[in-house]
This record gives sequence, structure tokens and C-alpha cells, in this order.
Amino acid sequence: MIIEMEKGVDEETVQRVVERVKKKGFDAQLSPGQEKVTIAVLGSGTGKVDTQIFEVLPGVKKVFRIESPFKLASRDFKKENTIVKVDGVEIGGNKIVIMAGPCAVESEEQILSCARLVKELGGKVLRGGAFKPRTSPFSFQGLGEEGLKLLALAREETGLLIITEVLASEDVNLVAKYADILQIGARNMQNYRLLEAVGKSGQPVLLKRSFAATLEEWLTTADYLLRENNSNVILCERGIRTFGNSTRFTLDVGAVPVVKRFSHLPIIVDPSHAAGYFGYVAALAKAGIVAGADGLLVEIHPCPQEALSDGAQSLTFSDFSRLMKELKALSAAIGREI
Amino acid sequence: MIIEMEKGVDEETVQRVVERVKKKGFDAQLSPGQEKVTIAVLGSGTGKVDTQIFEVLPGVKKVFRIESPFKLASRDFKKENTIVKVDGVEIGGNKIVIMAGPCAVESEEQILSCARLVKELGGKVLRGGAFKPRTSPFSFQGLGEEGLKLLALAREETGLLIITEVLASEDVNLVAKYADILQIGARNMQNYRLLEAVGKSGQPVLLKRSFAATLEEWLTTADYLLRENNSNVILCERGIRTFGNSTRFTLDVGAVPVVKRFSHLPIIVDPSHAAGYFGYVAALAKAGIVAGADGLLVEIHPCPQEALSDGAQSLTFSDFSRLMKELKALSAAIGREI
Amino acid sequence: MIIEMEKGVDEETVQRVVERVKKKGFDAQLSPGQEKVTIAVLGSGTGKVDTQIFEVLPGVKKVFRIESPFKLASRDFKKENTIVKVDGVEIGGNKIVIMAGPCAVESEEQILSCARLVKELGGKVLRGGAFKPRTSPFSFQGLGEEGLKLLALAREETGLLIITEVLASEDVNLVAKYADILQIGARNMQNYRLLEAVGKSGQPVLLKRSFAATLEEWLTTADYLLRENNSNVILCERGIRTFGNSTRFTLDVGAVPVVKRFSHLPIIVDPSHAAGYFGYVAALAKAGIVAGADGLLVEIHPCPQEALSDGAQSLTFSDFSRLMKELKALSAAIGREI
Amino acid sequence: MIIEMEKGVDEETVQRVVERVKKKGFDAQLSPGQEKVTIAVLGSGTGKVDTQIFEVLPGVKKVFRIESPFKLASRDFKKENTIVKVDGVEIGGNKIVIMAGPCAVESEEQILSCARLVKELGGKVLRGGAFKPRTSPFSFQGLGEEGLKLLALAREETGLLIITEVLASEDVNLVAKYADILQIGARNMQNYRLLEAVGKSGQPVLLKRSFAATLEEWLTTADYLLRENNSNVILCERGIRTFGNSTRFTLDVGAVPVVKRFSHLPIIVDPSHAAGYFGYVAALAKAGIVAGADGLLVEIHPCPQEALSDGAQSLTFSDFSRLMKELKALSAAIGREI
Repeated sequence: MIIEMEKGVDEETVQRVVERVKKKGFDAQLSPGQEKVTIAVLGSGTGKVDTQIFEVLPGVKKVFRIESPFKLASRDFKKENTIVKVDGVEIGGNKIVIMAGPCAVESEEQILSCARLVKELGGKVLRGGAFKPRTSPFSFQGLGEEGLKLLALAREETGLLIITEVLASEDVNLVAKYADILQIGARNMQNYRLLEAVGKSGQPVLLKRSFAATLEEWLTTADYLLRENNSNVILCERGIRTFGNSTRFTLDVGAVPVVKRFSHLPIIVDPSHAAGYFGYVAALAKAGIVAGADGLLVEIHPCPQEALSDGAQSLTFSDFSRLMKELKALSAAIGREI
Repeated sequence: MIIEMEKGVDEETVQRVVERVKKKGFDAQLSPGQEKVTIAVLGSGTGKVDTQIFEVLPGVKKVFRIESPFKLASRDFKKENTIVKVDGVEIGGNKIVIMAGPCAVESEEQILSCARLVKELGGKVLRGGAFKPRTSPFSFQGLGEEGLKLLALAREETGLLIITEVLASEDVNLVAKYADILQIGARNMQNYRLLEAVGKSGQPVLLKRSFAATLEEWLTTADYLLRENNSNVILCERGIRTFGNSTRFTLDVGAVPVVKRFSHLPIIVDPSHAAGYFGYVAALAKAGIVAGADGLLVEIHPCPQEALSDGAQSLTFSDFSRLMKELKALSAAIGREI
Repeated sequence: MIIEMEKGVDEETVQRVVERVKKKGFDAQLSPGQEKVTIAVLGSGTGKVDTQIFEVLPGVKKVFRIESPFKLASRDFKKENTIVKVDGVEIGGNKIVIMAGPCAVESEEQILSCARLVKELGGKVLRGGAFKPRTSPFSFQGLGEEGLKLLALAREETGLLIITEVLASEDVNLVAKYADILQIGARNMQNYRLLEAVGKSGQPVLLKRSFAATLEEWLTTADYLLRENNSNVILCERGIRTFGNSTRFTLDVGAVPVVKRFSHLPIIVDPSHAAGYFGYVAALAKAGIVAGADGLLVEIHPCPQEALSDGAQSLTFSDFSRLMKELKALSAAIGREI
Repeated sequence: MIIEMEKGVDEETVQRVVERVKKKGFDAQLSPGQEKVTIAVLGSGTGKVDTQIFEVLPGVKKVFRIESPFKLASRDFKKENTIVKVDGVEIGGNKIVIMAGPCAVESEEQILSCARLVKELGGKVLRGGAFKPRTSPFSFQGLGEEGLKLLALAREETGLLIITEVLASEDVNLVAKYADILQIGARNMQNYRLLEAVGKSGQPVLLKRSFAATLEEWLTTADYLLRENNSNVILCERGIRTFGNSTRFTLDVGAVPVVKRFSHLPIIVDPSHAAGYFGYVAALAKAGIVAGADGLLVEIHPCPQEALSDGAQSLTFSDFSRLMKELKALSAAIGREI
């Protein structure tokens, strides 16, 4: 349930409504940074109470129910686009933000060479996995904290922001020490404990869509992060599982305009995991951008054929350079820039 | 099996190879318009004969098997892109071809107003259904020949090419009398008798991908058209059926680069059926173009809310005008034009 | 819209209602063989008229709208189970009907040996393809009429009913000359012209579910057959296309109870096309039966490794014999018999 | 890589091989309880060493590679069926094991009434969620430890085993204190940290298939449990996500025979989550059993319409009683018993 307050009401009036909400046994959450104050009334029993009990309070303009299962991620709760600001980089604004780097951090030389290229080409964020979720326990699992340190080193040298995946709630503090943006991977989208821990950390977070999640489920999951008053949430579409077998996953490019319609959160696209093959990455990257995505997450590698994971879908440095050039031309054509 | 001839061999030498192929009980098909002559050896038993029996013939450079189930649609058979030429319009060349119009032809006024707009904005082909495949026998089934006549009228006035769907082999002659390009719909992609009849008609044809077909199945199906020596085949991706439910179908934008890699045929995108909602059509249209599609098939309607079918996904005239402007800017940015 | 008449009204009263329906521009169809007469009001505009205009007529008990897109296939139209009777064999009654035979008719010896086994083990219907829909035009396409004649021969000798696929409306008369039940394959489920032709033939028909059709689409498609007053319609679930790749298709065994709930039509299961591998056929066959299916369509072959199509999923004679024994035990356990 | 030892070799000989494996930098794991000793050689680099280096060792009969990505879960590693024994109950043997109970533990009365019914009807295991993974953070999340205590109470009274879900590695010790079998839910199938923790606990574990996992991924995931020398792993098929929308998920009944072919682990079926509607549960339950499943996990509730979660798919006590009767008849017909 959403309580929309009159324009210009004072904080005390708002607080009285919040108190009434809590007295009824619900949680209350205020939409951040909007002209008009909006209060979300949260809890499993909101469907059973009448909207009237809040409509009669002073300063309340309108009370309505959110039909969708997601509440805090909904545009009904917050009309303006959320812009996630991390150290001067804005995600969700007019600029398109490129995040790139290797699938896994493998060595100092590897990560530094990637970082320098990303920096040089205008990227803002360096990606690189230190903790890797692998289907088989016998596959390479990442360098762990050693990998995080190498990422920090790359940041120090280049000034790029760092994004890296966190696999478990017990790792959140460790990873947050090194990373600017925490990534929740597709397989962990419904690992609710992890979401709660990341939400509580207050760190900016990138929430990948599970390859089997509907958009409703994805946005509802984002509520786990948002309810911890962590509004720095970035969504990432990375392909869904379908009967198709010519790409590794099927990029659901249509998810971009749908998310933009129903949610205020920024959304970026990961063309690499969707493609599964370097030769298709550029097409998907460009498609994502013109469909309205706020950025990209791209895998690159100085020598893809020797990568310890996901080599087939990693771009070489020269392929990535060409792609960045094309993306800049496209961005200009749609009135945005990189 | 593919027989590649030496460069510059004379026709007699080629004919001797063709005769040998036929003597062995196979069909032979020559790739059209290439520098080097290539002969496809076709039949269910080609796997059982040795390539050597053709390798020893004069003028033969190389004999190899095509691993994919599709043969004539394969780049192994024909390296150069196929450009389908219809009355001066080229599909598959550098220019992007826009096909637009209503889902179903409903009246003279409706189809003429659409045609004038398409023409004015730089579209080359007018779409409009006269025979409609409908899930329920109790839904509007199209105007039939009356609809075809209205399409012809629109062509006469505007000079646009006409594309319209043909539902059954017994209608091919009738529809071919009025249409420049015959459309085979997604539900009929595996209606092989229809494919044979359309192939034999020699008319340019647009083959939509079934929403449940893999790319292999789609390209293999194209062989039914190509084996009739009808090389004027255009492919059309229109969304596949997945668990996703926020768009009507899931546009498989990754199909575009994959088809370009493995086939020489032109491919266009239908963003309207994939979207199912007018608000998502522009994003999908733009995504298709930058992913490498050679054109678009878009549904427009002077008054979508009164359309007899597919109103929800039809663009208004003003939405379509805005989209065309955006598409022109994008085309320029990728070195193509509309 | 459905008009339910009072119990025991005379035919004249019914006819007056039918006339009124037609006067309003709709079609009227009576539900066959029920205690209470029910009239379906059909046409694309039924949603726009008020139910009252029929409620006031003499003999009318109740008028209501059918929410589902399928009308004639719905239990709202006909409450009792439909039992399709073909030459003494009942499909949809208490007995489970086994249909078995090779994927394609290949030779007299092959089809006769299959027929004898099916007969001996208690099967009632012999299957065998004479016209085969194949993905590639270069694969074996069936023996055509020669195959039909061999099927007729097998019927003559064994007394089994014959079921075989019809691919195109122009073949309906030919196939109907030889076959007792016409089969519409999964790829042709939405070939509406074919459905109309088969509906008009009055022949019993088995309508396979397209591997990409929802249950609603499938049942709505059945309306194309039923509206021709052909009530001899049998449904067949044969697996749907999913991301799963360990069986050829995913048998949607849950479709059986859902169809039984919403439709009056009999439903059987084809475990062979779903499995794609002989080793999984028995498990799927048994699952289908205990889930409530009225029969099975099973592929067998005297020598699967030499079959011209679908060898991998065909049961040997000894495997089929063992399966029939198991099915008889299961049928008894659920109060039915084979 | 698998090293098969000669029959009857002494432990010392086996140990020498194990040492050699470890010297090469790999892990070694012995297949438990088989006539012939089999050693799995594990690690990401096994593909790069020659099988010869182990073949030459004394006592070694054969060395071969496992093609599948799953190793320890594979029948190549262990030929005999694994029977998981928990306090006298065998899962994977000839008896079919019924696990039933409410989706969530709600109250003492609710769980005790369920437990008594399950016991009375011949079930062996009581299910009931104390920690519930919910899509929305604002839905009922379970009673937590209070729920675990109620489950323990029910065990005390009835002697039934307890199965309940564990959501996070930090809860494993707590849940293991109360539960006989730990359940890993579908959404956590790829929560590898949780799998490791549960593996290390040594507790019997039920691993649900993610609704988006292929069978290969599922079995490969089981390796995370098995490598901790925890061989008490039970698999559970609970429906996959497809385009189908008439049941909540699509029960992949074909997964049962495929898993039985490629893995030695027991597999049970959860018909409730697949169905999503009580009216379809019995059909899916029976289908699972005759397809070869070793048991069922069924949701029941004394008053489904008042359930705090999953009420629509819960069986009433009388529906469950009827189902158990039918299952007993079916079990007898396939030579097993409940």
C-alpha cells in the first residue's frame, strides 16, 4: 500500500502517518529524494486493511494499493528514475556506463592490462571475479582474497571503480572492503540471506536476473535490497534460459523497456553471458544500448584462449576497442554519451 | 555434400559433374551468381557415398560435407550474402528496408492511409493481412481476395511493394497475383506443402521463424524453398516462446548475428509480434537493426484501439513517424541507410 | 455464449432459439447426445450482445458466457465425457486403447509383422506414417499412397483400425479412403485449412498438441474440427519444447488432468516422440496412463536400428511385449483395462 | 578420471594408488561399499594428464575418463544404486518412501494433526518448512527455530523422520539439530556454499532440482555434496519452468528414468510444487511413482484455504488418504510397496 502525502507537508506530519502505520503492525518506508513524500506500507497483511484508515490522516493526499508483487522497486512507489552514484560515476543518468574486465581475476598482469584498456577507452568500472560460482566443485573457483587485492591494485593505478561478485553472506564484509559495487550473480538472485546481508552493507549493488526469473520475480527480489534502505541498486539482464541453443542464453532485450516502464531502477545489459561466443557479443551489446540500457557489463581478456573460465565469450582487446568505437557512435545517435 | 569447382571452368565441365551426380541418384543444385561454381549434392543417402567419386572428376577443386542439417541455406554452399531484388528494392544489401502496415487489411481508407504514411517516411514495402491465421475459428479471418485488391490499389497509388501472408498451397496462385512478396507465417513454418508451393511459384518469399523453432530447424526449412531454385528467400525473426510473460514473445535478437554467420540469406526483424504492446516496439526495432538485421516488419494502424486484430501492438502514425526518425539516425551511425 | 435449455423441451422450441441466434448474425451449434440440450452461440461479436436477448425466449433455462477462448471443446458446453467410437472401438471410455506401429511404413513385411504383434498383445489401432513431415526436404518423405495400401492390407489381415497422418487438405480424401482415424501432427496443429478439411471429412481425428502450444491454444484449435459437426476428436499429448535436453521433448504429463478438467474430449499420450530414446518410453507410457490418459500411441519396429526414421525411439518387439504386460497390471490397479 | 582396481586387492595397494594421485596434485575419492574398489581422480587439470600414469600401477585394472561433467554422482563411478539409510528407513531401495506434511509449520495443532495422519497412512517422513524462501520480503517467512521445535515434537510423538529446508550455511548446525534430512530447495540448488556446509555436516540431504537446471547441472551440483564424503544424497524432481501455464511448473517426469540411467542416487518426486493446484497433485504423484521414483514429497494441510503459504496446492486429509490408497495399489502393480 502506498500513501502519497500532499506536496510540502512538514516532517512532523509525515512522522505521524509513519507512526500510525507502525501501530497497525506494518513497516513504513519513505521514498528517497522525491518532490512529494511517498510512504510504502509493508507487511504480509496489508491486503486485509482498508485504505481509509490512512486516508483520513492529516497531510495524506491519496492511498492506493500496488498491484504488482514488487513494492519498493515499483514506479508506483517512486516516479523518478533512480540514479546510483558511486564516487562520481552515475549509473541511470544520461551517460552510458561501461563495465568491463575478465571473467576471473587470474594474475596481476592480466587484470592490470585489462584495467588500463578499459580506462583508456572510456570505461568507468572494472569487473573481475575473485569468488567464482562454478557448476562443478572440481573447476577453478577463483583466487579469493588474493583476487580482491589485485582488483584494488588496478583501482589504485587507474582510478576505475571495482565490481566483483559476492557469493555468500559471510563474505560480504570482506568483499565490501575492496569493491565499490557488489555483484549478486544470476544463480544467487534468490539467495535471500545474501540479499539481506548485501542490503544491510549499504554498498552499491548490481543484481543480475536469474536466467529463469520472470521480471516480476526479479523486481520483487530487489525489494530485499531496497527494504534495508539501500537504494543503490542496479539491475542487470544477462540472458534467460530457453529452448534456443545457438547462443548460450537468450538475451531478453525486451526486458529493458519493460523494466523501465514498471521500475525506477537503472538497468544494464551483460551481452557476454548471453552470447557465450565472442562473435555475438557486439551485436547484443549494441542491441542492449539502443533498447535503453544504462550500461554494459562486458568480458574481455588479453588472451581469451588461455582464460581459466569463459574464454569463448571474452573479447580480445582489439575487438573491445572496435566495439567501444561503435558504441560511442550509437550513443551519440540516441542522444546519450559514454 | 558440396562440390567446389576450379575457378573459370567452362559450363560443359560443370555439366559433366552434374550428370555424374544425377547418375548416382542424387539431385544437383548450382549456387547462383558466384565467382566460383559450387554444386550441392542432395538426397537422403549422400552420407553413404565417398567424396572421392566426385573428387576425381576434371575441374573439381574440393569436395566436402556440410555438417549442418541445412544445405542450400548454408554459407558453406554460398559464401556471398544473398541480396533479394524485388522491382528495384534490394533486401540484404547495405540499405535497411522498412516494411510496415496494419496487421489486417480492414478498409480502403485504412490501408491507403497506412500506405501513404509508409511511402512518405521512406518505407519500401506495405504489409497487410488478407488471410489471417487465427487461433479461434470464431475470430475475424481477414477480408480474403477483397483485401488483396485493396493492397493492389495501395500499390498502384504509392508504388510500394506489397507483402501479405499466404496460408495454404491452394491460395498461392491467387495471392501471387496481387503480392510482390509472399509471407509464410510462424505457424506455417513447418507446413512443408505450402513451402513447396511457394518455392515453385518463384515469387520472393519472407519466411518467418516459428516461435518454437531452433535456428537449425528454421534454416533447414528454408531448404524447401531454395531447392525449387527460388533463391529469393528473406528470413524474419519475430520472437520465440519462453517462460517470459512480460512481452508477448521473447525477441531472440541474438538470432541475427548467428544467422548471418551460418547462412547467406537476408534476415529482418518483426518487433511488433515479439512485443505484443506498442510501448515496447521501438526498443525492439532499434535493437534488431543495430544487431545487423536487413530490415523491419512493423505493424501500424490509424486507430489501434479499433483494430480488428493485434491492436495492442500496433503503432499510431505519430509513434511510427518518431520511430522512423530514430531509425534513420541509428542507420547512419552504423554505416547503413534507410 | 452458451444457452442451456430446460430439461425435456421439444425440438420446435429449440429450433426457435436457434433461429433467433442466426437472426442475430451468429452460428448456433447443439451439443450432441446430452440429456439437456445446450446451444453454443458462435461468432466474433458475441461479446457485444447482452445475454438477456436469449434468456427471455421460451424453454431457455440459463445463458452464460464461456470465459475460455475454446468454446465447443469446453466442458461448459458439454459436461459428459466424449467417447469416440470407431468400428466398435471406444476411445475415451473405461478401456485404455493402445495404438502402436512403426514411425513410417517401410515395407509389407515390416508393417504386417508390427500389425500382428499389436493385435496379439491387445492393441486396437495400428499406426504408421505414409506421408512424413520432415525438417529437411532431403530426408525420406514416406511411401505415400503405396504406404496407405500396405496399411489397408494390414487392417484386412488383423482387423486393427488404422491411424495415419495427413499433411495437407488436398490429401484428406485420399488418406480418408484408407485410414480409420486421421492424424494431425504437432507441426500442423495450427494449419487451419487442414483442420477445416479434416473436420468436414467427418472422419475420426487425432489432434496432436504442437510442441509449443499452450493447452488453451490446443483446445481452441480443436474448435476448428468441432465446428464442422465432427465430434470425433481425440487429443494427443506428445511432449513440449523446453530448455531440457535429456529427453527429445518434455512430456507434459500434467496436461492430462488439466485437459480432463476443462474439456470433454478424450486424450491419449505419445511417449515415443517425447522420449526420443527407447529406454525412456516405458516410463513415460506408464506415467501417462496413471495420470488419466485414455490411450497411448507408441512407436515399435521389428529392427529399430534399420528404421528409416525415428529408430532411436522405437521399441523392439520384446520391449513392447514387456511394456504391454506392465500396462495391463497398471490398468487393473486403476480400475481400467486394456 | 576413474581408476578401477582389480577385484580383491588389499588396502595397501589401493593406498599406494591414492598416494600417487595426490602426488600428482589431484584429490582421490573412493566409491563406497562396492565389490570392486573404484577411485575417482578429481581436479580441474585431470584432462591434461595421461591415463597411463595410473594404469601402470600394481592392482589397477582399468583407467578411464568420465565424459559427463558430473563425476561422483555418475554411474561410471559407482554402479550399484545408492540406498540412503536414515534411522531404519531406506530411500532408494525397493520400498517407496512417502514424505508428507504442510508447506510451512504454522502451529502445534497443525503439525501434529498432519504427523498423525502421515504416520497412520504409512508415510515415513514428515515435511514442514520452518525457514521459508519467499519471493517477496514482505511475505510470511516461517516460524524459524520455533517451527523446528514443533517438528521435533511431532517426531517424538509419531516416530516419523523429519525433513525441513535449510536456507543458509550459517543455519546448518541449527537445523541439523532438529532434522533427520536437510532439504536444499530449488532456488538454492546453485548456492554452492550452502551445499558445502550441508555436505560437511554429514547429514542426509534432499537436493531439489532448480526449476531451470538441466539434469547435467543438477547431478554436477550433487558432486558438491558427495565430495565431502557425504553419500546420503537424495534427488528430488519438482517441475521445471516452461512456457506452459496450466500447471505452476511442468513436472519433468522423464527426468526419473534419465537420472536412474546415469546416476546411482535415489530420486523422488514432488508433485505439489509442480502442480500448483490440489486437483492435479494425485495424477503427478502417480505418474512419478510408475516412472520409477523412489518416493514422494507431498504437501498436505488440515485446512488448505487457511494455509499461510501454498494453500492452493495442498491436499486435504481426505484427498491424501485417497491418494495413499491408490499409491499402494500402484506400488503393488509394479512390484514395490509403500
